[in-house]
Amino acid sequence: MYSLKNDYSEGAHPKILEKIVTTNLEQCEGYGEDIYCIEARALIKEKLENDNVDIHFIPGGTQTNLIAIASFLRPHEACIAANTGHIFANETGAIECTGHKVIAMNSNDGKLKSHHVLEAVKSHTNEHVVKPKLVYISNSTEIGTIYTKKELKELKAVCDEHNLLLFMDGARLGSALCSQENDLSLNDISNLVHAFYIGGTKNGALLGEALVICKDSLKEDFRYHLKQRGAMLAKGRLLGIQFVELFKDNLFLEIGQHANDMANILRNGISELGYNYLVNSPSNQIFPIFPNDVIDKLKENYSFAIWKNIDDENTCIRLVTSWATKKDMVIKFVENLRCISKN
Amino acid sequence: MYSLKNDYSEGAHPKILEKIVTTNLEQCEGYGEDIYCIEARALIKEKLENDNVDIHFIPGGTQTNLIAIASFLRPHEACIAANTGHIFANETGAIECTGHKVIAMNSNDGKLKSHHVLEAVKSHTNEHVVKPKLVYISNSTEIGTIYTKKELKELKAVCDEHNLLLFMDGARLGSALCSQENDLSLNDISNLVHAFYIGGTKNGALLGEALVICKDSLKEDFRYHLKQRGAMLAKGRLLGIQFVELFKDNLFLEIGQHANDMANILRNGISELGYNYLVNSPSNQIFPIFPNDVIDKLKENYSFAIWKNIDDENTCIRLVTSWATKKDMVIKFVENLRCISKN
Amino acid sequence: MYSLKNDYSEGAHPKILEKIVTTNLEQCEGYGEDIYCIEARALIKEKLENDNVDIHFIPGGTQTNLIAIASFLRPHEACIAANTGHIFANETGAIECTGHKVIAMNSNDGKLKSHHVLEAVKSHTNEHVVKPKLVYISNSTEIGTIYTKKELKELKAVCDEHNLLLFMDGARLGSALCSQENDLSLNDISNLVHAFYIGGTKNGALLGEALVICKDSLKEDFRYHLKQRGAMLAKGRLLGIQFVELFKDNLFLEIGQHANDMANILRNGISELGYNYLVNSPSNQIFPIFPNDVIDKLKENYSFAIWKNIDDENTCIRLVTSWATKKDMVIKFVENLRCISKN
Amino acid sequence: MYSLKNDYSEGAHPKILEKIVTTNLEQCEGYGEDIYCIEARALIKEKLENDNVDIHFIPGGTQTNLIAIASFLRPHEACIAANTGHIFANETGAIECTGHKVIAMNSNDGKLKSHHVLEAVKSHTNEHVVKPKLVYISNSTEIGTIYTKKELKELKAVCDEHNLLLFMDGARLGSALCSQENDLSLNDISNLVHAFYIGGTKNGALLGEALVICKDSLKEDFRYHLKQRGAMLAKGRLLGIQFVELFKDNLFLEIGQHANDMANILRNGISELGYNYLVNSPSNQIFPIFPNDVIDKLKENYSFAIWKNIDDENTCIRLVTSWATKKDMVIKFVENLRCISKN
Repeated sequence: MYSLKNDYSEGAHPKILEKIVTTNLEQCEGYGEDIYCIEARALIKEKLENDNVDIHFIPGGTQTNLIAIASFLRPHEACIAANTGHIFANETGAIECTGHKVIAMNSNDGKLKSHHVLEAVKSHTNEHVVKPKLVYISNSTEIGTIYTKKELKELKAVCDEHNLLLFMDGARLGSALCSQENDLSLNDISNLVHAFYIGGTKNGALLGEALVICKDSLKEDFRYHLKQRGAMLAKGRLLGIQFVELFKDNLFLEIGQHANDMANILRNGISELGYNYLVNSPSNQIFPIFPNDVIDKLKENYSFAIWKNIDDENTCIRLVTSWATKKDMVIKFVENLRCISKN
Repeated sequence: MYSLKNDYSEGAHPKILEKIVTTNLEQCEGYGEDIYCIEARALIKEKLENDNVDIHFIPGGTQTNLIAIASFLRPHEACIAANTGHIFANETGAIECTGHKVIAMNSNDGKLKSHHVLEAVKSHTNEHVVKPKLVYISNSTEIGTIYTKKELKELKAVCDEHNLLLFMDGARLGSALCSQENDLSLNDISNLVHAFYIGGTKNGALLGEALVICKDSLKEDFRYHLKQRGAMLAKGRLLGIQFVELFKDNLFLEIGQHANDMANILRNGISELGYNYLVNSPSNQIFPIFPNDVIDKLKENYSFAIWKNIDDENTCIRLVTSWATKKDMVIKFVENLRCISKN
Repeated sequence: MYSLKNDYSEGAHPKILEKIVTTNLEQCEGYGEDIYCIEARALIKEKLENDNVDIHFIPGGTQTNLIAIASFLRPHEACIAANTGHIFANETGAIECTGHKVIAMNSNDGKLKSHHVLEAVKSHTNEHVVKPKLVYISNSTEIGTIYTKKELKELKAVCDEHNLLLFMDGARLGSALCSQENDLSLNDISNLVHAFYIGGTKNGALLGEALVICKDSLKEDFRYHLKQRGAMLAKGRLLGIQFVELFKDNLFLEIGQHANDMANILRNGISELGYNYLVNSPSNQIFPIFPNDVIDKLKENYSFAIWKNIDDENTCIRLVTSWATKKDMVIKFVENLRCISKN
Repeated sequence: MYSLKNDYSEGAHPKILEKIVTTNLEQCEGYGEDIYCIEARALIKEKLENDNVDIHFIPGGTQTNLIAIASFLRPHEACIAANTGHIFANETGAIECTGHKVIAMNSNDGKLKSHHVLEAVKSHTNEHVVKPKLVYISNSTEIGTIYTKKELKELKAVCDEHNLLLFMDGARLGSALCSQENDLSLNDISNLVHAFYIGGTKNGALLGEALVICKDSLKEDFRYHLKQRGAMLAKGRLLGIQFVELFKDNLFLEIGQHANDMANILRNGISELGYNYLVNSPSNQIFPIFPNDVIDKLKENYSFAIWKNIDDENTCIRLVTSWATKKDMVIKFVENLRCISKN
């Protein structure tokens, strides 16, 4: 049984793990003030080509979203997100638990567009409803699509016009940046959004996300929020070391590229066999639609998520690749599918 | 420069790290439902000699406290803690941030006694003040003292009488259980408190605490709270693997014992030189009082926390030992102190 | 200029005001423990024909909703409401501010049906999403429709099956109960929902709502929540006196009947002139659709809410009647409309 | 039985009630935007001799405190208050329920002094503890003492130096301002604090407090918070009308003066009989210490609060006067006491 269920089935990229091992006995400061966290911040700033940001390392993605958003907003302010947005659909009301409403806008491709934001703003104009203040987007999105530079610029423009904050959830930013369709650089992102995070967990780390705060007014006292919400690890070195390794050379993007390459093999093979997709997703998550009996046979050798019922005979599944996905396994998957499809 | 500043300066115990490395490429379920988390739960239940508990692995201590307490209490209910209690004194209002007041009782030795609880209950008897509902204790305490079985039984009795929950923060439970003065077993604890956590971070793990919920009514839906507060790691295996290693043989207690042994060497040496302590702390944290010029000289070779000003000429410092503290270093510390003291 | 904008433009029904005046100098207990609150509770229980309920008086409707819901739910639990539901659409995220998500279901007539509840339950089945726990309905709804006994029984059945709480917002319960289409009694309601409130503010009081808690497990410690959220008035008598007056004879229903009678005059007159409605609303709120130039002329003499743009030439407005609406004024409104329509 | 238990035993001052009656049938805007609220704001600004403030009317005191404080603070920020402060001691954790810790400083006379503030600031200097941000004081305090201009200036100075907000709870501001020992004017207060409220409930109104926001940055979007926390009454006129009546002439201070005069009669009489006080309180609350048998006899004719046990034979009680306290009753109380004391 081989799993294509998600991008967090295995542990860490071997280079990361090796660094954890070789530094294990060094004595470090606690709480994210160690030399590795400091070095990792410097390395990321270099890659961002932007020195005017604050960077904090946080164990997980939901935690990053909730701490950032709760620290950025006043009690009456709300988020705008796509209805597929992770904070709306997959985080057990984590944002609401901090007191803030998430206004969900229907989107077919997982992306929130400037017209969605405008619509939300226009329908929230007095004190009997919440005040939209933060626009939440994911790149890549929860269904594998990615934002273009044009789309991000349009979002920024509408945010600037209406005094909104633009926040990007980058749990799968590595894969997004390495997509063949991507035209955004890390520098672009740091200039176009007010805060974003660079996902480690789904891009080769054991755990950890790097929150990048770009807008000055959002930076103050952020470490208090980390501590208050339980995100300040005593052995913060664990996060710093991993991001040093991801960013000191090019590992972060190499991992994204590998995951995408493996997804491309799957995508090309599946397309050649004549199958369609729920959505065109040029990243490490693909959503092919198969007849149910094909899925039953695939299940004998692979695990994956059942995404959505299409009709009585067809179902959409999700296949996800990662740094650890093996080339021979995805080739074999396509071969298997070919055999199954012939019968 | 050698650090005796805390018990989280180094990484993980080598056995734990090795297990992380050797299992790295295995594909596991996410979110704490992997085989290692399952195995770790079984192993801990064995050591507890108590099968009727629920066990959850959580990245850090503050997070464990806040999630457990927020899930246990209704909005109007409050905690009772010693004024030195971690949730009152060191967690940036994490409990208040979830909506609950912490009623602090003054205690000289870091321990909350049954009479403190009774006093808090008696001064909170109507709806114009919060309703005390949860008694928070730490074992060992924040100043290194430990609870006796008698004290814990008395606390349980007053809790039972007043329908209160008894919760033990076990960030340093390993050291407490290995103290020469300890008479509590893990089984005792699981029978006397309604929930507690077994600290990994300060006892040899990279990160991670094992929350043990003993009282049935507190168990329902706990995983929702983990997710909602951002504590459910995608690669939950990372926590499971470490607790397997800590509990499959006797590593958890071996680490506590080593830390205590190192503290004993320090304590005996310091006492022999005629110094006093802020408090008698029979665990891995000791609080000697030194003349300020002695401290200045110690600072040349050691880092440690300045704990409390005693008078114009004397100050209390905190020395902490861990799994990683080296015997030759603590012997050398005592030697150094002897030399300094002679001059 | 005459206002048909809402049912809170005037002060209190004269009988209520008179009682406030005549009791003004009596010395009473504070905080809702006075003889009038006690009497009012007894009178309401009589009308409910149900002695097994707890009754609390709360200044306003949003406050009642948020305190009740926050006291009933654990942090991971959510509400289900119609997308027009007051807690979703008109309370500035008051429920989210207490930490709870509101799951909105699209409904054409403002009513949440059992199939909506079922759909919400079926799409929320694991700990990565909130757990639906409370079903919020309004009677009459925000667009003037009312629940039938059959609908309420079906809702109760689905709630019972899925261990959900059924909560009714009765801000306009007086009008609902007096509707020609109503088949529910107060007794029915107290048997079919777990908690509900009887609106005073929109039914002749200066302010005040009576929260009725029917389910035993929801009753405990409720006064703590009142105090904690700022709803326990020092001069609680003010609320008690008003509800005594509303319930000692039949004033509560007389007011609802009068409001409905006035709405009927409007409805009949408007219908006779051939106009349509956004929705069939058999209570004190009606939603006629008029050509824009008709609306412009009506505006010269009446104030009302513009509800919804229908098309380029037509708009829906909201007309609301109350205890204070004068018969000659609504007759005159219809006359005016007739004149305007002829030209 | 005559009650000296508190200043909210009776209803409203007759002039206020009369105004409510005479305006009852007027149609007004809802939600605090009616002509009476507008007029009341203008009148209060006149009395403040300060036009640069925002004024909001809120049903109760706890509600005012919690909404103001929650809207002013970010999640990691805390209040500093005297241990007798209403938000610490009498509001069921209302502030903590909004997520913020209250740091309590021991004070003998109910007043928070600048040295208390400084002490709190100095002991909260890193992100492992909350960040003190708002200084909460009550004037008069919960034990009847009042602030001098000098004390208030010193508090403001320390607040300015440490970037803290100064907030005054004026539930009993009327009595404070009319105290023989008072040297503060409303104008002084509006210049020295960043926000405060003028209590109506305990100064002759049926209910209602007027929150005055002096600091510009605290004003934005405040009405959203009112609505979100359930404090925006539909018939907001009820609050506006009362404050018009309190401030259009001099009624607010006349009431404070009457209450103080009645307290003076009690105080002088009790002192003449040789009794002592818990604290020197020059306002409408006094705290005499009586032998227990004297108290038992007083109880036959008067109700009052038992405040504090002094020793085995003596107890401190609280006597409170108000607009409604009758001169002949307090004279009679002193007579009664004299008789009791003689025997």
